[in-house]
Amino acid sequence: MKVAIVGASGAVGQEFLRVLDEQQFPIDELLLFGSKRSAGRTYTFRGKEVTVKELQHNDDFRGVDIAFTSAGAGTSKEFADTITRHGALMIDNSSAFRMDDDVPLVVPEVNGDDAFNTPRNIIANPNCTTIQMVVALKPINDLSPIRRVHVATYQAASGAGAAAMDELKTQYGQIERGEDPTVEKFAYQLAYNVIPHIDVFQDNGYTKEEMKMYFETKKIMHAPGLDVSATCVRVPVMRAHSEAVWVQTESPVSLDEARAAFASAEGVVVVDNPAGKEYPMPLFVADKDPVYVGRLRKDLTDPCGLSFWVVGDQIKKGAALNAVQIAQYMLAHGKKF
Amino acid sequence: MKVAIVGASGAVGQEFLRVLDEQQFPIDELLLFGSKRSAGRTYTFRGKEVTVKELQHNDDFRGVDIAFTSAGAGTSKEFADTITRHGALMIDNSSAFRMDDDVPLVVPEVNGDDAFNTPRNIIANPNCTTIQMVVALKPINDLSPIRRVHVATYQAASGAGAAAMDELKTQYGQIERGEDPTVEKFAYQLAYNVIPHIDVFQDNGYTKEEMKMYFETKKIMHAPGLDVSATCVRVPVMRAHSEAVWVQTESPVSLDEARAAFASAEGVVVVDNPAGKEYPMPLFVADKDPVYVGRLRKDLTDPCGLSFWVVGDQIKKGAALNAVQIAQYMLAHGKKF
Repeated sequence: MKVAIVGASGAVGQEFLRVLDEQQFPIDELLLFGSKRSAGRTYTFRGKEVTVKELQHNDDFRGVDIAFTSAGAGTSKEFADTITRHGALMIDNSSAFRMDDDVPLVVPEVNGDDAFNTPRNIIANPNCTTIQMVVALKPINDLSPIRRVHVATYQAASGAGAAAMDELKTQYGQIERGEDPTVEKFAYQLAYNVIPHIDVFQDNGYTKEEMKMYFETKKIMHAPGLDVSATCVRVPVMRAHSEAVWVQTESPVSLDEARAAFASAEGVVVVDNPAGKEYPMPLFVADKDPVYVGRLRKDLTDPCGLSFWVVGDQIKKGAALNAVQIAQYMLAHGKKF
Repeated sequence: MKVAIVGASGAVGQEFLRVLDEQQFPIDELLLFGSKRSAGRTYTFRGKEVTVKELQHNDDFRGVDIAFTSAGAGTSKEFADTITRHGALMIDNSSAFRMDDDVPLVVPEVNGDDAFNTPRNIIANPNCTTIQMVVALKPINDLSPIRRVHVATYQAASGAGAAAMDELKTQYGQIERGEDPTVEKFAYQLAYNVIPHIDVFQDNGYTKEEMKMYFETKKIMHAPGLDVSATCVRVPVMRAHSEAVWVQTESPVSLDEARAAFASAEGVVVVDNPAGKEYPMPLFVADKDPVYVGRLRKDLTDPCGLSFWVVGDQIKKGAALNAVQIAQYMLAHGKKF
């Protein structure tokens, strides 16, 4: 299979290289694309050097089977036609097409079959916070339909890119040396702080990040009546997001039922042994594939409510891994590339 | 007035010294008490050196009008009789007596008058997370009774004491130098991490910290039917706690009504101008007196729901300042010491 990565030098692009290899994805030829700035860089994939080509409006995607794109919504919109017109399937990590009716928005554990309905040859990868949440919502929703979700996030620096991760690390050194910390990638100093502001504010007072959780969850779960109210907060953590979640189901779900459903759910690992101080934490989930669920308990305000804590690696399941898993799901279910 | 501070060398004890001075609290004589270990240390208050005496079962509290105690629940229980038997009013920062029926639990902006009903000469200062939350709940509850609250916290290291704050700072230096970070004050490394575990776990899967928010809120607000489901999380921040809050009221409250209520509420400062990137953050609320509220918006899952973000200094309003404000409230309302 001929596979392309667009945005190869970014944090997610680099993760695509690692994940495709870890997952032993069947690749005959790998092409890397990037901006003019990153063109010419070389990366090693399975022992072979691959040089980044500049993404341009030409026929470079002729013969490509799958293009994993992660170069921002603007680039995805501008180059979608160039990428797909010769038949390549574009699995896009940006927000460009997520809410388009003719583009499926896919988390394989939840709605993998939607990936087969691609009139535009585009599949959208959801936002990182949504992916890890819906993986955890699915097993509960199968027991009793979820009516509403309250979620507060604890989001890692990685969501803002590799340079943002560097900035956070640099800030601690600067503070230690008594220097003014550099603040470029976040609205404010993130070291020793939390910032309740991710992506731009909308008219209703929610951020775009929070509204992604609202809209994307409905679409992925085929549940227009499932409402989500999110508060998204950046915390000084490197690369895994955590979420405090409350769900209200149509009928009561017992803790035993919920625990059993999580334990057998695809993509979920339950870490929930309070007596042994075992619960998921972002420091230890970094670089891991699954979504970790713990702190399961009844919502004390609601007989139909449950509360739990969800942690997932933002760059892996929140981005590159989910996109690769979409392609794997299609292969496993008979798609020929 | 003769005032004593018990636990004078701790983080909250030291804050009592600063707050009593800042607030120009009327003190004729200040006595400091501590453990055997801290006895003999001297601190300067209003230009005079005061030596810490060892807390013992003797008559040292004879003549004391108010004792601010913050030396842990065990010490408070053991010494309550010694402290109060000659008539001193004990304003206790520990959890020892908070839920006792004959001990009022007071946040002056919410239930100041409860401070006048003290059959045991003891008033309890609520838990830090509860204090800042109820200050923000009160103005909404006055518009329409609150039925339930969902709250996710982002709690600073200071809640675990001065040594815990030092440990967090030390961890960043150790990580920078490639050393293994020291982990003694928290269950796990806090640097670059968040830990969904504060205080011990209860049988229902909630931590004691989370259940404090449940029980204390009911008592302070005189609202046995007001339920709170909390997820309490330690974050790598120094001394201000943040909280993502959702409230459900009996009847709908508009954003304009809520905003006006917050703006005129005692002890609340509204910082809520998303367009100007203005919202409360713990780094900038450290060492400030009020409770800061921002990110006000409708709960997207509930026509009777509101969501907002509350930040307060854990050592000030969450501990020492609230205790001093209880005494100030009593003085302003006719109490003679």
